[in-house]
Amino acid sequence: MIYLQKPDWSWRPSESVTHVHQWVKQEGKADVILFGAPLSRSSISASAASYYPEAFRKMWKGFAAYNLDERIDLTKVSVRDAGDIMMHTTNIKESHRRIEDTAESLADSKLTCMIGGDHSTTACAVRGVKKAFPYEQIGILQLDTHLDVRDPKELGPANGTPIRQLIDGGTVKGEDVVNIGLHGYFNTKELVEYADEKGIQMVTMQRARRDGLTETIQRAVKSLGHVDRIYATIDMDVLDISVAPGVPASTPGGMKSEELFEALLEIGKTERVKHIDFVCLDPQKDNHVSATVKTGVYAWLQFMTGVAMRK
Amino acid sequence: MIYLQKPDWSWRPSESVTHVHQWVKQEGKADVILFGAPLSRSSISASAASYYPEAFRKMWKGFAAYNLDERIDLTKVSVRDAGDIMMHTTNIKESHRRIEDTAESLADSKLTCMIGGDHSTTACAVRGVKKAFPYEQIGILQLDTHLDVRDPKELGPANGTPIRQLIDGGTVKGEDVVNIGLHGYFNTKELVEYADEKGIQMVTMQRARRDGLTETIQRAVKSLGHVDRIYATIDMDVLDISVAPGVPASTPGGMKSEELFEALLEIGKTERVKHIDFVCLDPQKDNHVSATVKTGVYAWLQFMTGVAMRK
Amino acid sequence: MIYLQKPDWSWRPSESVTHVHQWVKQEGKADVILFGAPLSRSSISASAASYYPEAFRKMWKGFAAYNLDERIDLTKVSVRDAGDIMMHTTNIKESHRRIEDTAESLADSKLTCMIGGDHSTTACAVRGVKKAFPYEQIGILQLDTHLDVRDPKELGPANGTPIRQLIDGGTVKGEDVVNIGLHGYFNTKELVEYADEKGIQMVTMQRARRDGLTETIQRAVKSLGHVDRIYATIDMDVLDISVAPGVPASTPGGMKSEELFEALLEIGKTERVKHIDFVCLDPQKDNHVSATVKTGVYAWLQFMTGVAMRK
Amino acid sequence: MIYLQKPDWSWRPSESVTHVHQWVKQEGKADVILFGAPLSRSSISASAASYYPEAFRKMWKGFAAYNLDERIDLTKVSVRDAGDIMMHTTNIKESHRRIEDTAESLADSKLTCMIGGDHSTTACAVRGVKKAFPYEQIGILQLDTHLDVRDPKELGPANGTPIRQLIDGGTVKGEDVVNIGLHGYFNTKELVEYADEKGIQMVTMQRARRDGLTETIQRAVKSLGHVDRIYATIDMDVLDISVAPGVPASTPGGMKSEELFEALLEIGKTERVKHIDFVCLDPQKDNHVSATVKTGVYAWLQFMTGVAMRK
Amino acid sequence: MIYLQKPDWSWRPSESVTHVHQWVKQEGKADVILFGAPLSRSSISASAASYYPEAFRKMWKGFAAYNLDERIDLTKVSVRDAGDIMMHTTNIKESHRRIEDTAESLADSKLTCMIGGDHSTTACAVRGVKKAFPYEQIGILQLDTHLDVRDPKELGPANGTPIRQLIDGGTVKGEDVVNIGLHGYFNTKELVEYADEKGIQMVTMQRARRDGLTETIQRAVKSLGHVDRIYATIDMDVLDISVAPGVPASTPGGMKSEELFEALLEIGKTERVKHIDFVCLDPQKDNHVSATVKTGVYAWLQFMTGVAMRK
Amino acid sequence: MIYLQKPDWSWRPSESVTHVHQWVKQEGKADVILFGAPLSRSSISASAASYYPEAFRKMWKGFAAYNLDERIDLTKVSVRDAGDIMMHTTNIKESHRRIEDTAESLADSKLTCMIGGDHSTTACAVRGVKKAFPYEQIGILQLDTHLDVRDPKELGPANGTPIRQLIDGGTVKGEDVVNIGLHGYFNTKELVEYADEKGIQMVTMQRARRDGLTETIQRAVKSLGHVDRIYATIDMDVLDISVAPGVPASTPGGMKSEELFEALLEIGKTERVKHIDFVCLDPQKDNHVSATVKTGVYAWLQFMTGVAMRK
Repeated sequence: MIYLQKPDWSWRPSESVTHVHQWVKQEGKADVILFGAPLSRSSISASAASYYPEAFRKMWKGFAAYNLDERIDLTKVSVRDAGDIMMHTTNIKESHRRIEDTAESLADSKLTCMIGGDHSTTACAVRGVKKAFPYEQIGILQLDTHLDVRDPKELGPANGTPIRQLIDGGTVKGEDVVNIGLHGYFNTKELVEYADEKGIQMVTMQRARRDGLTETIQRAVKSLGHVDRIYATIDMDVLDISVAPGVPASTPGGMKSEELFEALLEIGKTERVKHIDFVCLDPQKDNHVSATVKTGVYAWLQFMTGVAMRK
Repeated sequence: MIYLQKPDWSWRPSESVTHVHQWVKQEGKADVILFGAPLSRSSISASAASYYPEAFRKMWKGFAAYNLDERIDLTKVSVRDAGDIMMHTTNIKESHRRIEDTAESLADSKLTCMIGGDHSTTACAVRGVKKAFPYEQIGILQLDTHLDVRDPKELGPANGTPIRQLIDGGTVKGEDVVNIGLHGYFNTKELVEYADEKGIQMVTMQRARRDGLTETIQRAVKSLGHVDRIYATIDMDVLDISVAPGVPASTPGGMKSEELFEALLEIGKTERVKHIDFVCLDPQKDNHVSATVKTGVYAWLQFMTGVAMRK
Repeated sequence: MIYLQKPDWSWRPSESVTHVHQWVKQEGKADVILFGAPLSRSSISASAASYYPEAFRKMWKGFAAYNLDERIDLTKVSVRDAGDIMMHTTNIKESHRRIEDTAESLADSKLTCMIGGDHSTTACAVRGVKKAFPYEQIGILQLDTHLDVRDPKELGPANGTPIRQLIDGGTVKGEDVVNIGLHGYFNTKELVEYADEKGIQMVTMQRARRDGLTETIQRAVKSLGHVDRIYATIDMDVLDISVAPGVPASTPGGMKSEELFEALLEIGKTERVKHIDFVCLDPQKDNHVSATVKTGVYAWLQFMTGVAMRK
Repeated sequence: MIYLQKPDWSWRPSESVTHVHQWVKQEGKADVILFGAPLSRSSISASAASYYPEAFRKMWKGFAAYNLDERIDLTKVSVRDAGDIMMHTTNIKESHRRIEDTAESLADSKLTCMIGGDHSTTACAVRGVKKAFPYEQIGILQLDTHLDVRDPKELGPANGTPIRQLIDGGTVKGEDVVNIGLHGYFNTKELVEYADEKGIQMVTMQRARRDGLTETIQRAVKSLGHVDRIYATIDMDVLDISVAPGVPASTPGGMKSEELFEALLEIGKTERVKHIDFVCLDPQKDNHVSATVKTGVYAWLQFMTGVAMRK
Repeated sequence: MIYLQKPDWSWRPSESVTHVHQWVKQEGKADVILFGAPLSRSSISASAASYYPEAFRKMWKGFAAYNLDERIDLTKVSVRDAGDIMMHTTNIKESHRRIEDTAESLADSKLTCMIGGDHSTTACAVRGVKKAFPYEQIGILQLDTHLDVRDPKELGPANGTPIRQLIDGGTVKGEDVVNIGLHGYFNTKELVEYADEKGIQMVTMQRARRDGLTETIQRAVKSLGHVDRIYATIDMDVLDISVAPGVPASTPGGMKSEELFEALLEIGKTERVKHIDFVCLDPQKDNHVSATVKTGVYAWLQFMTGVAMRK
Repeated sequence: MIYLQKPDWSWRPSESVTHVHQWVKQEGKADVILFGAPLSRSSISASAASYYPEAFRKMWKGFAAYNLDERIDLTKVSVRDAGDIMMHTTNIKESHRRIEDTAESLADSKLTCMIGGDHSTTACAVRGVKKAFPYEQIGILQLDTHLDVRDPKELGPANGTPIRQLIDGGTVKGEDVVNIGLHGYFNTKELVEYADEKGIQMVTMQRARRDGLTETIQRAVKSLGHVDRIYATIDMDVLDISVAPGVPASTPGGMKSEELFEALLEIGKTERVKHIDFVCLDPQKDNHVSATVKTGVYAWLQFMTGVAMRK
């Protein structure tokens, strides 16, 4: 008798769907569409965030499709992994265009999750959504250490510029952007002045911690009460360097993982959030136990738990 | 004149007992018996937790035998290091039998501390204690990210199965197990259902944090008010990946080290706790500053401080 | 337009077979059968060599199926990846039995390649081959830093014992074993005496280097001129620690990678070599650029180049 | 056209002063004088803290000269980097003398910041200040895991001894020392007894956390109400090992980075604090993302923010 | 007395020019012009080779300006560091244009050394030289594991394409390219066929080792006897993974560092070599002792020693 | 039955002496006296070479006391480990004095092995030997990348100065020093001029490799034919960075480990070599598989094999 199993055999034989890789399907209709945007050569500093979609999918085998805290069986939400957007090797503009087109095409799904890639992909995705729903007002719920309002005239459409691209380009209004997690010495005075001028709502990490993350998200959502749909963008560098070394611009003083998890559960619960992305996680900068990638998968599952609680 | 000192000379000459390695003795009677169970080939994933007893003893030279927070001189409790259980190189069953026999032999000590090894060793140790005290009812106080109730029929007596071994084998009742620290996506639905069915008391990490760890332990002990003796088992993977990278299954969302320390002080104070083990710490997965091993020694000293406060 | 590609999409679209993962097939008849034996809990020291089959397959995407030195197109040899042998989680004896059975079943293939796992798997595989060809005399061509003749009576069938298992068990004669690569201080006097007594042919690393590896292999094959089939076993710890950190027992003074590559080309060319295995490569001990896993894939491809030159 | 820029060109062209390295000047008068004391061969355990001044200056390019939490533009405070004190290669005594002389010479600046070096440098610096102001009473505000009152008679003026040097030498009174952050098992009983005897005010980490760091600092400053000037000394090993691996004696159970930042803001605000140092940060022990060095720069900027708020 | 030295103070006071950073000047005329081309977002795989010019300059402080093997005082050759070419953040085409323009402007120096950046920069630099000397025939002396003749139609001007760009674009003839160091399984059959077709001279690593590197370089130079000037391009991934982990595509089976050093001495001696570049060294992938960066500096100094011997 | 073994129990029970730690004794008379000189605060750059004696002894458990290449049973030579010299924590001069005194006391042993520490310890040890044998002429056989003739007037008795201390101090004549392994750019012109002037015999790495290491050592010994006793000093930084990352000043272009092993076998065989030391190995800079420490133990055993062959 031979005991051979196919090479791609997952680590434990199972008829039942118990882990994430058994739950997420690759074909058919689904409540949630997941896709990767593996582009990071548009990053100001060198970044391998383009490898995150692959690392994300590989890691999810280690996670059960069941949330024990909330006693939620995630399999009641259907998810389809639509794969990765093919990027051009050297033409960043073309790659950005493809993200925009793809996001437009998928925008009428119940919910889309984009796995970046660097933060420049967010500007493309939001423009794609806007094209699909030209008469809707879009709000941005951003978790980030940075404002990301550097000037594209100087840098081109780099990862430091997406929010400014969207505001200056008329896709989103400054006051429809809420940025949570700002702290310390990572935004120059002139950028803060730009944000003030445009009316961006800035919630510092200290403030968010004082109020609690659930409360903070609820207030942010409320302050976006007038928009038609909310696009949530999670720059993983919002996290503290001790919990997320694997980001190009890791800093001390950031969000703790349990705070991020709390925030994402609440974001997941919010009906008007129709799109989310997770960006700027560079698996090559992660530590030897892949702490950041694990945190990224956990964060996404918290969002999915919230989504499951919507029903 | 020659200034030579013996090779095994500890790092600073001292007549007085100031550090842990000077306090723990290798012979004679003692309040507390410490022994190692260096077995981890019974681990589902590859593990070098078998190297923890050696790493633990090497690290304790860096710790004073004095708790400054509580102003407790630990040397008033006597501790004997009984050494490591010899393991068979390839016969896991035989190694398990040796752990069980040893635990039985030592069970009438005032207090035993077993340094694992993976979590499969706990099933053996509890069975050994049960053999020594067949008419006593044993309660389990477990700090863990996992339920450890996977099916030994499928896996054999692996490290994912000890609690199920004990319940299905009639050694311990399901309702006499309190598991503190569960969180996230690391237990499948079917395992949670098994735990529910058997009456295992599950305290999530979130709940424990909300109540405070001291309070949580006190409640757990109260809920085990009817048992004759409590066996505490500390799976070091209960800790968050940012404070304990050196475990085979490290996860974000776990317990913080200061929470573990608070819990262990309270467990140490609890008269009915007669046995404790620390398992699943893999020194080869630790980071370059040995954060996990240091945390393991600190955790044990917190327990010992609590024991010193019993008197 | 959407630019999505399936998640498992390899890194560059291609109709033609250019890289190893496009060449090795998962179904059908083939000249060479490859299979994994992911067992390493039988290792004396803690080992994650059980993860090598997976790491091996993942890495081969980075290698072209073309040898530039010899101008050999590897695709003219057909290879089937038969997958991994399912191992029992805790019953090492049972896992060994499965390897033996599988090796017996596959033994009549033109050529088999087993990817270990630790060196205990070799004893099983050779016994399996012997069962399939009970009337053939089997020779062992071993590249190793160690003799691997420790006593299974003491250790059980651990990774230090395979050659002794085979000799004492009558499967192979001592004089039909040629061990190349021995050096330094990694075999005790008593083990060398056992080897002398049984007639094992010991070729030190220094001797092999002086003669050249091609010449050394040719002599070894000649000295096995009387056997019916040769089983080659490559313990990756034969390599020097500077080129192969990822083995449980890495040592200085070992074989260089270019020497291993030269040897494997010659072994591949040798018609009578019908079986080969690569063992004791632990990906968790590898360095940050996966030097050892890359060397393992390269070594296998050198063997395959030799095989392609047989025709 | 050629697009060349000078090699020392900072990472982004800028006329305006936006980042720390553009704000700190190397010449002229300034409110704050910064200097390095790159000495760590006086450390009990091997230490490369002597490399911190260089690492500190290199890292500050990544920090904006603007505090977003407090909306403070740091450039309104002037800072001069006076460079590093030249150390003797092998004569520790001579190096200590140079630190003392330099500290004396600079003592009449509005504010001095010394970047160590190990903690032995603090004893020299305080003696230098005392020489400059012989009739003033100096208070020490110490953030540290250790008391640093080991006996210089035994060790010479090593990094474990500075506080004892100052007390036994009559430079500072025991009751004018407040040590915040003590915890666990890192001070022997006899050292605690010395501290008690001399009246050192010990505030454990647990106590400081319970009260809040701002409150803790305010109380400490109040308890030093009678001294003429306060010298603050920040031993970076006060931090928890999970946020500051890069110190020679990293421990679990320590201060969190956000707590340190809160404390330093308050210390910065305190008018009577005229001198500060940051010691025992060893960049060679830091992790791959330089978490500890980044935390060190952030901590200093929190202090500077507080200073800016004094005005 | 104060013992302060300027922050940028090099590690040891010296009037005499003893080390590389004291020898290389930033202004004035010189025999050799050095400049950086910090671009690597044009790399197929994620690369931080853009950080190499900075790492290169920082490391050279640890090297004496004196070659002990050849007893050559390097200071008799004058070198000017012209700084780094400013790159556009997201417009790769524009960055390439700047490299081409700069190379053209500097082409009439006696000798230019470009420090990359990825290998795409070479195509630009050679085109720049060609523009400066339109009537000269340029030969390429390439040390590389790869042919770098992938199709720019597919990838754009990425780092896998420079030689093909130059051949297909008519800048260089195929037969005027000599590639030394090819080995193993890192060039697909179709790329080798392209090289054959265009007449590229391929010298495998095995061949070069057999002949000796000095001899190999001399033959290569001879085979380029008809060209007017030789452009040498050193892709650091020609090196074996055990000596150069810090390249994006590290492989076993490559060149040893002493072989590279021997080759570069000979290249340096060759009068007709007027330009050299060093590319694809990624400091972020280097190991903890910066082995690859050190090897890069050493390699450049070998070239410079050869140049000094020209006179 | 209890299966406990003492904590310090070595990894495998054994009556017979098979491994190094069972062979080296701590008491009694012996052919070879081994002692540690754990001092490295005298090092120019930060060094933890003071931790090498401990790391050396811990590692030797992994080595058999039998040389397979030469078929030599090491146990026929007796070795006593005399322990470590106690060092003063901050008084380098005093520590140096203790080394000198100890070396003098032990100098009449048949053979002494000193395990450093940094290279400053060699000057002390040689002076100690000279004091013991004032009328003997001492020759130095040095394996080193550096000349170590920097000026103690400038640096004090630092690790860059020992050979100059001995020559200028009249302990050893310049022409009685043979330095093997010099290469590259790690000695300034002025230091080479000093060496030339004093008549130091400089054998470059290239020269030694060309001649072979055995031949090179034999010639060196011959050239010291007139001295009474030879003191061999092995600065581990003679090794190439790829085989010995764990030295403070690791360089490419150095000696390979097999070359060092060959040299040490020959040195061991040389009757007139009465003293040897191994210095400047910093275990904290070693890689994750302790390659340098393993190489250090192997090197010492090669020397011991040579000694065993003397008889």
